[in-house]
Amino acid sequence: MTYYKNCDILIKMIRIGIDAMGGDNAPGVILDTVSELVRTVDDVQFVLMGREDILKGKLPEVVEIVDAPEVIGADELPSIAFRKKKRTSIAVGIELQKKNEIDAFVSAGNTGAFVAFATLGLGKLQNVKKAGLATFFPTKEGRFLVIDVGANAEAKAEHLFQYGIMGSIYTEEVMKVRAPRVGILSIGEEEIKGNSVIKEARELLKSAEINFVGNIEGHMILRDVCDVLVCDGFVGNSLLKFGEGVVNLIMELLKEGISTSLKAKFGALLMRDTLYGIARRMNYDEVGGAIILGVKGIDIVCHGRSGKQAIKNAVQLAVECKRRDVNRVIEQRLGQV
Amino acid sequence: MTYYKNCDILIKMIRIGIDAMGGDNAPGVILDTVSELVRTVDDVQFVLMGREDILKGKLPEVVEIVDAPEVIGADELPSIAFRKKKRTSIAVGIELQKKNEIDAFVSAGNTGAFVAFATLGLGKLQNVKKAGLATFFPTKEGRFLVIDVGANAEAKAEHLFQYGIMGSIYTEEVMKVRAPRVGILSIGEEEIKGNSVIKEARELLKSAEINFVGNIEGHMILRDVCDVLVCDGFVGNSLLKFGEGVVNLIMELLKEGISTSLKAKFGALLMRDTLYGIARRMNYDEVGGAIILGVKGIDIVCHGRSGKQAIKNAVQLAVECKRRDVNRVIEQRLGQV
Repeated sequence: MTYYKNCDILIKMIRIGIDAMGGDNAPGVILDTVSELVRTVDDVQFVLMGREDILKGKLPEVVEIVDAPEVIGADELPSIAFRKKKRTSIAVGIELQKKNEIDAFVSAGNTGAFVAFATLGLGKLQNVKKAGLATFFPTKEGRFLVIDVGANAEAKAEHLFQYGIMGSIYTEEVMKVRAPRVGILSIGEEEIKGNSVIKEARELLKSAEINFVGNIEGHMILRDVCDVLVCDGFVGNSLLKFGEGVVNLIMELLKEGISTSLKAKFGALLMRDTLYGIARRMNYDEVGGAIILGVKGIDIVCHGRSGKQAIKNAVQLAVECKRRDVNRVIEQRLGQV
Repeated sequence: MTYYKNCDILIKMIRIGIDAMGGDNAPGVILDTVSELVRTVDDVQFVLMGREDILKGKLPEVVEIVDAPEVIGADELPSIAFRKKKRTSIAVGIELQKKNEIDAFVSAGNTGAFVAFATLGLGKLQNVKKAGLATFFPTKEGRFLVIDVGANAEAKAEHLFQYGIMGSIYTEEVMKVRAPRVGILSIGEEEIKGNSVIKEARELLKSAEINFVGNIEGHMILRDVCDVLVCDGFVGNSLLKFGEGVVNLIMELLKEGISTSLKAKFGALLMRDTLYGIARRMNYDEVGGAIILGVKGIDIVCHGRSGKQAIKNAVQLAVECKRRDVNRVIEQRLGQV
């Protein structure tokens, strides 16, 4: 790992590690994406983790390959894999981050494993009590960040509070949203609604120096009422998966309707642009990678089904996080409260 | 309230109370529905709660009207309204249930108020620790019951366990589902996934004499994997509202697409049947009323937007619950565990 020490100019490059083996379309989509990025981006150095025998010779020379021959099985417990498997692509990526040999790490592999390896392997940023997995939900006009979508199944009020701060910093610094509106998911708009943890978290968020907008109900969250939505990982994960499920079901019903009627088929042809537009707009896979906020590193999780554009988006996100030094801002801000 | 004492034959009638003032379309839709039901159903006696001055003369004579002149404001706390407002339609309905003058009560009014009045006013069935609000979610082919969708924002493992038993009895007795599959919402299929309450509840459900199918993840719940899904009221309420939100958003995007392009407009005309089919299939309002399982009474909550069919469905549900004596079965079964 001396590639950037031999050349002064390269020292300033941002070094992005990518898991070449993670995701449904790996390594093909990763190889294609990185080959393309190398041609168009000139201030990023790519380091790919994966099976050297498979990857070698398939990438431009400037791309570093680090051998990672092991694989985590689908039914393996992430915490056990973390102790036993030191040479999987995720393990190697986290290890390089720890040694500061890469600035960020992107993977479309098993989300649970990635989160476990990152939290256990890198540890938390100073002043952070729990890391939260943050991802975007699509809305009619844009998108908003939900934190936590599954890093922790349980959350205390102070964790929800910190999610709010971290989410606010991330959307402001990286997404360039001015004074992001931070809301907390609850089951009624009124202050008295929600469970005890939510009520306590709301009081903490109210007193923070963020643009806190209060309770947000389930039917409102897609209505551009906030830029950051705070909830625990159990609820967030359930909402994310359920949202994907509802969209997929509607698309399936549409396809079935179209396939069983010639009239509908012709109608769909005429409605093509509208239907594609909706499918694209409501695609939970493509809205960008999820970031593990709060760990000592920049770690972006992509959906397993990620295509080229999703991987590119994730790389861009990673670069931007490094440039804006988001983690330092989080440490500072949380140190002040 | 002597209408059924004067005539022997009427004593065997099922007496359904209906809130004439609740819902967006009240009292119009209620008056229409009840007038129609009176003509077609001959073993049900209807009792309407509402403003007598408005309702009088607008219904067939066999329908009893009980004056309920007060109204609960949208911003009123249900628990305070319960103490202070004794003559709202919901309060009067609950009171009649308590006196055993009606067998069941249907309202499309404020859900929070209805749940509060029912749980505070009627109390819990024997052996029941918490009442749960149970409603159906639409799937591709049919529907499944989710309990709790918001009666309690917090749940202990034993509450989730009882929701599973009550939901199983309800779907089996009233919906005629044989050996209903009961699942628990979690954030992974594996046993180790979920938070501590979920894990504890799962162990309890496993040992119960029901057809327990284990963890169900958010993206799977619409895939006909269970007939009853158990979760706490915070998560259930969030999912219900979010599901409505996603469906509404997609329908809105469709409408916008259609309105901005002549080609799409013509296409939509040809796809009419398919699109209407989907809108009907995915309509969270119409899948039937929600029942408050665990209270000493049969209480059915309808969506505020309920039309005639939804009110009819709710009345039918109430009648069936009374006929199958669901509450007695719940008391017995929970007494055995």
